Amino acid sequence: MKPAFEVRLKANSYPVYLGNGLLRSLGHLCRHHEVPEYVVVLSDTFSGRAALKGALAALRRSGFRTLSLGMPAGERQKSPERVGQLHTAMLRAGVPRQAALIALGGGVVGDVGGFTASTYRRGLTFVQCPTTLLSQVDSSVGGKNGVNHPLGKNVIGSYLQPKFVLSDVALLQTLPRREVITGLGEILKYPFVGDPSLLDFIEKNLGQIMKRDQSTLRRMAERCLCIKTQLVSRDEKEQRARGRNLLNVGHTVGHAIETLSHYRIHHGEAVFLGIIAEGWISVRRGWMTDEPVHRLASIYRRLRCRFNLDGISTASILKSVSSGRQKFILPGDGGRLSVVNDVTPDELREGLRFLGGL
Amino acid sequence: MKPAFEVRLKANSYPVYLGNGLLRSLGHLCRHHEVPEYVVVLSDTFSGRAALKGALAALRRSGFRTLSLGMPAGERQKSPERVGQLHTAMLRAGVPRQAALIALGGGVVGDVGGFTASTYRRGLTFVQCPTTLLSQVDSSVGGKNGVNHPLGKNVIGSYLQPKFVLSDVALLQTLPRREVITGLGEILKYPFVGDPSLLDFIEKNLGQIMKRDQSTLRRMAERCLCIKTQLVSRDEKEQRARGRNLLNVGHTVGHAIETLSHYRIHHGEAVFLGIIAEGWISVRRGWMTDEPVHRLASIYRRLRCRFNLDGISTASILKSVSSGRQKFILPGDGGRLSVVNDVTPDELREGLRFLGGL
Repeated sequence: MKPAFEVRLKANSYPVYLGNGLLRSLGHLCRHHEVPEYVVVLSDTFSGRAALKGALAALRRSGFRTLSLGMPAGERQKSPERVGQLHTAMLRAGVPRQAALIALGGGVVGDVGGFTASTYRRGLTFVQCPTTLLSQVDSSVGGKNGVNHPLGKNVIGSYLQPKFVLSDVALLQTLPRREVITGLGEILKYPFVGDPSLLDFIEKNLGQIMKRDQSTLRRMAERCLCIKTQLVSRDEKEQRARGRNLLNVGHTVGHAIETLSHYRIHHGEAVFLGIIAEGWISVRRGWMTDEPVHRLASIYRRLRCRFNLDGISTASILKSVSSGRQKFILPGDGGRLSVVNDVTPDELREGLRFLGGL
Repeated sequence: MKPAFEVRLKANSYPVYLGNGLLRSLGHLCRHHEVPEYVVVLSDTFSGRAALKGALAALRRSGFRTLSLGMPAGERQKSPERVGQLHTAMLRAGVPRQAALIALGGGVVGDVGGFTASTYRRGLTFVQCPTTLLSQVDSSVGGKNGVNHPLGKNVIGSYLQPKFVLSDVALLQTLPRREVITGLGEILKYPFVGDPSLLDFIEKNLGQIMKRDQSTLRRMAERCLCIKTQLVSRDEKEQRARGRNLLNVGHTVGHAIETLSHYRIHHGEAVFLGIIAEGWISVRRGWMTDEPVHRLASIYRRLRCRFNLDGISTASILKSVSSGRQKFILPGDGGRLSVVNDVTPDELREGLRFLGGL
């Protein structure tokens, strides 16, 4: 089977497989990539029974020994305690050092699974099998994992590159509407990170996207993954001044909103708002025409999004972003991104006011 | 400054500096190796005030911003809870992602520090500054870290190779007698892993070693590190059939004794006993003459060791090792090591009986 993309790294390059009905080949691909005999499959209540059944069956058909571990869904599961509970369950079951862990689910399962795999007996083989739009187009690639701490989001974690990523677009067919929008929120950063015409594509195909049309979702995923795999290949551990960090456009405001909502507003939704607010700051600086921001706002309205910002005041966002020092990745005309740390409280207020008028 | 050894790895090769009074150069070496500006120094109550003062002063002289974090001493500190407390302290202090952590202490500080560094904001730059004989000759090199779980020793951990290792032999001058013996216990595996004449050296210089004679300790450390750095360079993550795992000679019985004593018997002491017991199994198999084992026993007696095995029955060791399945690295004549998993309960009983007669 030919991978759609390859992440090229100094030590551990790996392929990203993307297609309809690929889950059936999970066992076959694990054999091909010499995954150890003992495979732990981690899923949450959100991964879907059909996906879990399909994954386990595919692995068993190829002769793997499997252990299925489940956890509740939701961002609150991204905690050191949850990782500790998984370690305990794996030790009780006698999972050996030569084993693999497959994260079957969305971003939360990928984060918790990646961190669990990277710290169990000094590291298991890791495979990403994303089942949501957001994880298929973005979070399953790049090896970042992390759990939250009362003092910060994703501050406990590591890099663990997967052996391979398997994205079965067919799994998106049963995705709840809210999850499609969450994925779209994250996707909407890519027009500003190297693929401006992706915005045209999304506007033109919004109906098909919301209908979970397989071929539309696949083409959209391909365009995102093309950028993501390139950026990760160039800057595995986010150490360059203009590398992976460019993917954080919209994330400074986004993270603040997500955290202040106590994760009531999901990551992709918060990033959607973040890109619009940060885009508006760029407009005010004269770095970008207002057209793309209005187009984002129009998509927001066409989707009838009404993210509930109750209780999240401008003052609390200002405080959380501690403006004047926090880094922002601001979009610009022609896909030119700027990394700045001099956004003023007034500019931020203007960006948030624009959100308020959506 | 020229390093004594170099660990050569695919992605991150690094030097090991070894010498008298090197601690003074810590800041200089951190500059040379482009360590980030913000440096967390982790030590325990056992690291020694002089060492901590010296390290902090050297770093500040070179202009680094330092944060000193302490923890109690002892194997019980190797816990996920301790790592969590250090994460919290670092988040409270605002330690950024671009920072370094220096483990200043023995094996416990190295393990806890390495794991903390590898999981804080997806990985800090890590420096090993070992202050005990055991950590200088062995555990500071190789990148292994780990904390304990009620269900197993070192089962939660990762690989994080340091940027460099700085071993100041002068720090050993104030080392308690018990710590010298603990170090020797671990060192006594090296005659069986490629350096048979090291046993002659130790026998001849035992008095000087116990007097913490600088040049003797240094020559001994050099011989151990020569083997360790080679094995790590060939097999970074212990994946070869005959690689790093060969360094685990004596460790199957050793780990069992250490754990069953609830860490009352220290790691190196337990390994000392483990090498003797496992050596005796080799003798009974006809794989080795009994001479080296009797020489080890004689060193044990010359040191007037009387490790207290009260409450650690042969039956409990047998159960812990679950013989017949657990891997043993058995020594042989001419430094030939065998990796086996067929040690019978009777053989193990014989080995333990030999210990009883020491």
